[in-house]
Order: sequence, then C-alpha cells, then structure tokens
Amino acid sequence: MKTAIYGGPLDLTVGERPDPHIQGPTDAVVRVVLGCVCGSDLWYYRGESPHALGPIGHEFIGVIEETGAEVTTLRKGDLVVAPFTFCDGTCPNCLAGWPNNCLHGGSFGNHGIDGGQGEAVRSPFADATLVKVPAGDYTDDMLKSLLALSDVMCTGHHAAVSGNVQPGSTVAVVGDGAVGLCAVLASRRLGAGRIISLSRNPVRQEIAREFGATDILETRGDDAIRQILDMTDGIGVDAALECVGTGQSMDTAFGIARVGSIIGAIGAPHGVHVPIETVIFRNIGLRGGVAPVRRYIPDLLGDVLAGSINPGRVFDYEVSLDDVAEGYQAMNERRATKALVRVATA
Amino acid sequence: MKTAIYGGPLDLTVGERPDPHIQGPTDAVVRVVLGCVCGSDLWYYRGESPHALGPIGHEFIGVIEETGAEVTTLRKGDLVVAPFTFCDGTCPNCLAGWPNNCLHGGSFGNHGIDGGQGEAVRSPFADATLVKVPAGDYTDDMLKSLLALSDVMCTGHHAAVSGNVQPGSTVAVVGDGAVGLCAVLASRRLGAGRIISLSRNPVRQEIAREFGATDILETRGDDAIRQILDMTDGIGVDAALECVGTGQSMDTAFGIARVGSIIGAIGAPHGVHVPIETVIFRNIGLRGGVAPVRRYIPDLLGDVLAGSINPGRVFDYEVSLDDVAEGYQAMNERRATKALVRVATA
Repeated sequence: MKTAIYGGPLDLTVGERPDPHIQGPTDAVVRVVLGCVCGSDLWYYRGESPHALGPIGHEFIGVIEETGAEVTTLRKGDLVVAPFTFCDGTCPNCLAGWPNNCLHGGSFGNHGIDGGQGEAVRSPFADATLVKVPAGDYTDDMLKSLLALSDVMCTGHHAAVSGNVQPGSTVAVVGDGAVGLCAVLASRRLGAGRIISLSRNPVRQEIAREFGATDILETRGDDAIRQILDMTDGIGVDAALECVGTGQSMDTAFGIARVGSIIGAIGAPHGVHVPIETVIFRNIGLRGGVAPVRRYIPDLLGDVLAGSINPGRVFDYEVSLDDVAEGYQAMNERRATKALVRVATA
Repeated sequence: MKTAIYGGPLDLTVGERPDPHIQGPTDAVVRVVLGCVCGSDLWYYRGESPHALGPIGHEFIGVIEETGAEVTTLRKGDLVVAPFTFCDGTCPNCLAGWPNNCLHGGSFGNHGIDGGQGEAVRSPFADATLVKVPAGDYTDDMLKSLLALSDVMCTGHHAAVSGNVQPGSTVAVVGDGAVGLCAVLASRRLGAGRIISLSRNPVRQEIAREFGATDILETRGDDAIRQILDMTDGIGVDAALECVGTGQSMDTAFGIARVGSIIGAIGAPHGVHVPIETVIFRNIGLRGGVAPVRRYIPDLLGDVLAGSINPGRVFDYEVSLDDVAEGYQAMNERRATKALVRVATA
C-alpha cells in the first residue's frame, strides 16, 4: 500500500509499505477514506519535537476491510471514525474515562503503527477504539465533519469541557488554529453566551464567526489581556481556553481568566511557564491535555449527523495522498488552516 | 488595647494600640476570645515573605462588642467566627463564590487592619464577613474547633474540594501541617475510602490517624512517589492534595496523581514549578489556592457543632497573648503543630 513516510525534519515522502493484515483477534484493518494533517504534525515536520521515522498521520476515517475473530461490533464495509489513539477499553485509565492514556494503547502513525496519511491501517483493540458511523449516504461535507471527530473537534471540546464552559459563560479562545476554532464551536454547543476569538487571520475569523464567535480580537499578549479585561468590567472571562501551547498564549490565558475559573488547555506545550502565584492567589485552575477522544466521539457524532455542528469547515485545503507534503507545507506557511488528505472514496 | 505587633523578621512584640471603634455603618467591633498562629505567619516571621509592619493574626473567634447602623445579622454578645479575609459579599467575585478575592476586601492582621492576635478587631462588612455561632454553652474543645474554621479547616477542605475528593476516593495528603491534617479530616468527611498521610512526626501522625488517615508514610520525594505508586498498582491516587507549597511537595503531588485527576493545592508557593508536560500528557489538573473560607464556614460549622468533626485537635500548644512570640517560636522550631493564642474568655 501507499503511505506517507516521515524521514526526518522537512523530509516527507510517499512510498510503499506492506499491506496491513490482521495480527491479533481484536484487530481490524481499515481502508482509509480521508486523512488530514494535524497542527501537532508540524512540530516534528519542522524538527521541533521528536517523532519516530516511518508512517504518519493520526486522524482518519475509513471503511472496515477485515476484522479479527474477537471483533464483535464492526464488520467489513462499516464506515468508522478512528480516534487518534487506540485503547483496550479495559485498563484502569480507560475505565476511568481516559482512553488516550490507555496502559496498552498508542498513537496511530507513530512508532511503526500505520498512519492515517496512508491507504490502510491496522487498528488493535478495534471494538474499543473505532467508532462505527451508522450506514448512510453521506455528503463530502459530512465526511469531513466526521473526520474532524478524529481529533480537532474532540480536542476543542476537551478545552471547553476542561475549562468548565457552561450555559451563558463568557469564553475566550486563545488560538485560531483548527482546534481553537473547534473550541469556539464546542463552546457554542455547550451554551456559552459570549465567545471571544483571538485571531488575526481573515479566513479563520470567518470560520470563527460561523462557529459562534461573538467577538473577534486581533490583538495578542498584553494588549489582548487589557482589551478583554476592559470588555469584562475588569473581572476576566469565565473560561479561558488555551489552544496554542506557547508561553505567550498561556500567559494570555492566565491574564484574562477570572478569579475561580479554570483554564482549559490543550496546546502541546513549548516554552510554557505556569504562574503558580496566579493559580494560588487568584484560584485559577488549569486542566486539559491530550483529549479523551474515544470518550467524546459518541456524543459529538450525534450532533454531526444531525447537522447541528459542522466541524469539517476547518478543512480549507485539500491534497491527494501523493501530494501530502504540499499539505504540510501549506499549513507550515499558514496558507492553510487544516489540510485534508483525500485517500479514497467511501 | 493590647495586640501583637510585627516589627520585622523575628521581631514580635506585644504593645498597646488604640481601641478599635465603629468607622462605617457596616462595621462591627469584635472582642477576640481565641486567636492562633498560622503556618503562613511563619513565612514573614522568618523574613521569607514580605508583610506590612503592625498588628498581625488573621484567624480568630470572638464576641461582638458593637455594631454599625447597617449591621442586621449580628448584635452585641454574639459569638462569631471570622474568616481570615473580610469581604463585601456583593462584588462579582463574592457573588461567584470567591469572597477571599473580594474586590473591596482584605486580610485581617495586615496593612494596618486589626489582627486576631490582639484584644479587639474592627471588621468591615460585618454581615458579609463574620459568621454567627448559635448561642450556647461551648466547651473549650468546641471553641478551638470553631477557631479552626477561621482558616485551617476551611483551607484543608478547599484542598479536598479542589482535588475533587469523592466517596470512595483514594487520597494522598502531602504535608502534615495543621492544614494538611485538616485536609485528611475534610477528605474523610467527603467520604474518601483510603487516605494516605505523608508525615514523619509522631504527634502529627497520631492526629492524622484520628482524623481518618488509613495509611501513614514516612518517606518523601521520589521514595514517597514509588511507595504510593506501589500501593495503587502503578496508577496513582484519585486525589493528591498539596498542602506545603514547596517545589518538592508539588513534584510529589504530580508524581502520585493518577491520569485525569486534579491536584488540590493550597500551599503558599515557594519555589514551585508546575510540570506542564504532566498536566497535558497525563491530563492532571491543578486547582486550589487561598480558600473561600466565608463560603465554606456555614457548611462546616454544622459538622463542628454536631461533633462529627473536631478540627480543633490541631492546636497542640497554647500561649497567652503576652507570650504570642513563644507560639511563633514553637511552631518555627516544629515543637508545635499549631499554637493557640488565648486572649479572653467567651
């Protein structure tokens, strides 16, 4: 099969790898329909984070090709959403609701595990990992929104849930990447009354507005803090969602969070310092992290199928599998918010 | 009136100050019955944190001497518990449940405000600040437990609430100071199933056991982490409560917290580094801070009066107001867990 292969910083090729096949009774082989490039893929693409060489891509939807003897909920032909990590569903962390921290799990597209930027993927623990989409005749837009459940929409939702967004909350989303935009959408879905999106990019501002942002701010850092405090009578926002992972974005989040609130943070941290004095003396908590996607998908899937959320709107660039490197480049150069990789038809 | 006066590091005297009197219509003057020395008092006593010179002591119970024209819930002769901060009860932070961050509030025994280590205190916003204790003939032990509501018991409770202690939870309390011991008691009150107390001090171990600790560990740092992970099948505790405020104690808390849990932290931070990678990649949150004591007192007061909790047990040393410096010394030399200052009779 054909797959994207990471050979080191800026070295992305498409090559041949052996077709995956069932190795254990809980495995399933998925023929990938749509994959995409994640903002976090750019960290290793640029050489700023380590990553195993080999197949890549941790977000995908696809069609079941083959299942192991013990797989009971899936069968050949089923359309499935893959969370970006696989999990056994039975370890203490899975049972506590943290499948992304499964003691026997791992990430797709890393450490030699097949990736979603390729034609096929073997998934271990298929019943516990993959989420079946009800049979149907889906539009391309719907398929894109299903793909968004693989990571970005669930991750934006995790920021909002971690930040305790409630009906009527005033929320500020720091970061206008695909996850930040999904955090706007998730906040609207949870009933936020006012959603402030920090974005300087006209294309992303438009998506943010579509997703429910009531205010767009083009400022950053101290200017953004001043502006948001002005907008909230000096009190700050009920939920500051940190969707970047840099020192500046975390500082901004702590600067705009109101006393007693919780910062919902999902950015992979690079140079982040947590101001513990602010945590303690202003009672501002910090929660979030790698999203428990497998736990969230079933809930959000209903909203996607009902058409009440359309997170697939974050895909504003499309490449074929052969041109996957161009997708990375477009995102790296900020020509694209999020690049879809079209692999096959459903 | 007589009051303790802070003159700088290690410089504590008892001197005369003008008797407090009503200055505004919401004021009350309280004649102090019992005060005490807080672990946080030791930071400025040692010169490790700044503090205004003048009257000190932020924890006290006392009897209302006089009230301003607009005070409606209190009258002369009422026994009251004072939270360690005063608050107006009407600002956005108070209304949101964070009276300790009142926009118009402040601390007793700081910046020239009368302190609880003195004969009398003027409390601004008396209705919103002071909590009336039902009339009764209370034992000295009961008065000590009422005094503990002024800070330590509510602060220990805040650690447990922030750490989301639930019925059946496995909890570890890092720190065996008066607040750490109260965090044990608060965890038991919230129904924790197993409570691990980290303590090397036999006197404190005994109180911890009385308060509900099921396990006492004498190890610290990496040894404690290894031991607690061994005790929890490698998973960690449901709630790690950080009740010290040092770098080592926070590292220990992050080392023993299970995936998806929240560290309840109330230690005033000195040299604390928050491991953001652990927050993000293990979804371990951080909440806590200066406790919203005024919000907690009414609930906990019922348990104290019913005798179901007896946080006054943390007072294992007693001095008169004249000898308050000896109370500081005893705590500083770890001869005392918490020193009571007996000022008058109720």
